[in-house]
Amino acid sequence: MSAPTWSLQCSACGTSASVENASVCQACHQPLFATYDPVAAGTPLGSRWDMWRYAPFLPLLEGEIPVSLGEGLTPLIESPTLAAAVGVRRLWIKDEAQNPTGSFKARGMSAAVTRARAARVPGLVVPTAGNAGAALAAYGAAAGVPVRVYAPATTPRPILDTIEVMGAELIRIDGHIGDAGKLALAFAAESGYVPISTLREPYRVEGMKTMGFELVEQLGWRVPDVVVYPTGGGEGTVGIWKAINELVSSGWLPGETRQPRYLVAQAEGCAPIARAFAAGTEKADPWVDPVTHAAGLRVPSPLGDRLLLRVMRETDGLAGTASEDAIREWTRTLAVKTGIDAAPEGGCGLSVLRDAVASGAVQGDAEVVLFNTGSGASYRV
Amino acid sequence: MSAPTWSLQCSACGTSASVENASVCQACHQPLFATYDPVAAGTPLGSRWDMWRYAPFLPLLEGEIPVSLGEGLTPLIESPTLAAAVGVRRLWIKDEAQNPTGSFKARGMSAAVTRARAARVPGLVVPTAGNAGAALAAYGAAAGVPVRVYAPATTPRPILDTIEVMGAELIRIDGHIGDAGKLALAFAAESGYVPISTLREPYRVEGMKTMGFELVEQLGWRVPDVVVYPTGGGEGTVGIWKAINELVSSGWLPGETRQPRYLVAQAEGCAPIARAFAAGTEKADPWVDPVTHAAGLRVPSPLGDRLLLRVMRETDGLAGTASEDAIREWTRTLAVKTGIDAAPEGGCGLSVLRDAVASGAVQGDAEVVLFNTGSGASYRV
Repeated sequence: MSAPTWSLQCSACGTSASVENASVCQACHQPLFATYDPVAAGTPLGSRWDMWRYAPFLPLLEGEIPVSLGEGLTPLIESPTLAAAVGVRRLWIKDEAQNPTGSFKARGMSAAVTRARAARVPGLVVPTAGNAGAALAAYGAAAGVPVRVYAPATTPRPILDTIEVMGAELIRIDGHIGDAGKLALAFAAESGYVPISTLREPYRVEGMKTMGFELVEQLGWRVPDVVVYPTGGGEGTVGIWKAINELVSSGWLPGETRQPRYLVAQAEGCAPIARAFAAGTEKADPWVDPVTHAAGLRVPSPLGDRLLLRVMRETDGLAGTASEDAIREWTRTLAVKTGIDAAPEGGCGLSVLRDAVASGAVQGDAEVVLFNTGSGASYRV
Repeated sequence: MSAPTWSLQCSACGTSASVENASVCQACHQPLFATYDPVAAGTPLGSRWDMWRYAPFLPLLEGEIPVSLGEGLTPLIESPTLAAAVGVRRLWIKDEAQNPTGSFKARGMSAAVTRARAARVPGLVVPTAGNAGAALAAYGAAAGVPVRVYAPATTPRPILDTIEVMGAELIRIDGHIGDAGKLALAFAAESGYVPISTLREPYRVEGMKTMGFELVEQLGWRVPDVVVYPTGGGEGTVGIWKAINELVSSGWLPGETRQPRYLVAQAEGCAPIARAFAAGTEKADPWVDPVTHAAGLRVPSPLGDRLLLRVMRETDGLAGTASEDAIREWTRTLAVKTGIDAAPEGGCGLSVLRDAVASGAVQGDAEVVLFNTGSGASYRV
């Protein structure tokens, strides 16, 4: 195979790492980031109808065929009705439900499994709050790589069923994704399976970047004022931020481009990032007894807390929370007013946006993009 | 608004009809077809990431913005593993699960609701075996047009839930889609709502055509040997066939291009088209007591029977059936070997293909495209 066009460095301390079989930084245990040979502005993008259209910016060897199920190139749907309902000038929904297995997690797994297959791993293991497990099961099946998933028994049943349908090994646990993570690491140590939890594995966030590329291209190569991201592990926001940085530094966006403000939306019953951001701390304390029906938001102690909080500080970011009732109400509003089959996470984002507009934290003349991270159908039990 | 670039004629007797508020042919009650001003070969296609990329071939007025939720541009995924399992040279899956509300029905509803909105209808009503109702509910919500859906109470619950989540009126009935159709027509007559059941409304099949355009473009502007389509109402096959005819007649495909052979896959418990095709009749008798867990195939008396049977005869077509157990087995095989979240309809298609190869009806050197018409998640009850 040809030489990689990227290298890996720690996102915090800059220490280098090998490009295959990498995990977190050996020196400081923070997430690794890929850095690429420059992609000259105007380089033709691919003609594929999936996220690998942006292959020059992605960890793919020359001639290598990615493990793909059609992830990405999701629609960006403008809704004047919803914009009026929350009080902003323009509002678009980026509908990530239209990915394989119905969530944005497909993007990260397409990239991660492509690299894992190249590294000839014996198997992959992941802890999940829900959708990441279903996505990994699908990409493992596509690549012929064995998969084991640790998931809370409270995960919505359609998601657990998807994991099993794909032939993955599903371990249902009492507890939350943090507990699942410990079991996954223990299993990895004894089996040789590679753990690929959020930001512990460096390529999932590379797949997430494609949401940023798409967003910018769909808006006509410009950025919105605000990006609302329902946040569990944080890889979505970090990915979009990284994509926009790369577009600016390589000349695809003007040098004076400012990052959008990232509005991190969490559930009242599990809001470690919102709490830490309000307190102005550099890292987030674990959330005790996380509870929310928006399964993807039930992440009490994300590994990427420092990185995400740094991104929020650097971009004049925001955070907010929604109650379980508000999540339900705004999930329904999203569906009825747009026809988008919104996941509770999308409803949480909409509720938090509405509150941020009402309080004046987001201005009424803003152009806003809200991510609906998954499919409502996955939560209907 | 500008003048339409299309007209409507009966697919059977050629009688003309008005382009708005049209139903079946007034003279012979067969489906109407749209005919377009020629689209010169090489005319630039749109840059949209949805089926409206093919707008020059679709019923859209100049400057009109379609009612869109990101339908179409679904992946075409080649699976050498699955090709080996069924015994053909090459096999691709066209994964229609990655549409809004998880099925190919989104395409037809995007086109039909766009025209219905232009005609300022008071509401839309549809009988459904499942996915068409969910799709109409979503596009009705997107367009702000009231929707009523008549569905068998036995329809998988995730699909019924989607209909209600979108704010549509759902009437659960005892019986099958044929019974639902009678109730829908009676309600339409008293309410003024417009009925848009399969091939009774002329624009749904125009949306279905885009599967044919995409398939041909994804294969590099050529057609496969065989298209396997799990068949209820028949609009998928008819749409693809119409698309390829239009590409040939307008010079996008060479004049000597032959249509693919269409392999119509049905369930043993509801196989009116397969039975009629085997008997060599011009129309299909209604199937008594239709039973299958592949809800989309439970269509005992499709309105498009004559048209579909004609397409099959003209293209050296084929038909076959699968038992409930075979549908389950091959649905699982499809998921495990590819990572595609297959609906039972997709599994039915795979089973029927395997049998057709085993019997020699489809040759081992064939290049085959199988449509997975919906998402497995929609059937997990």
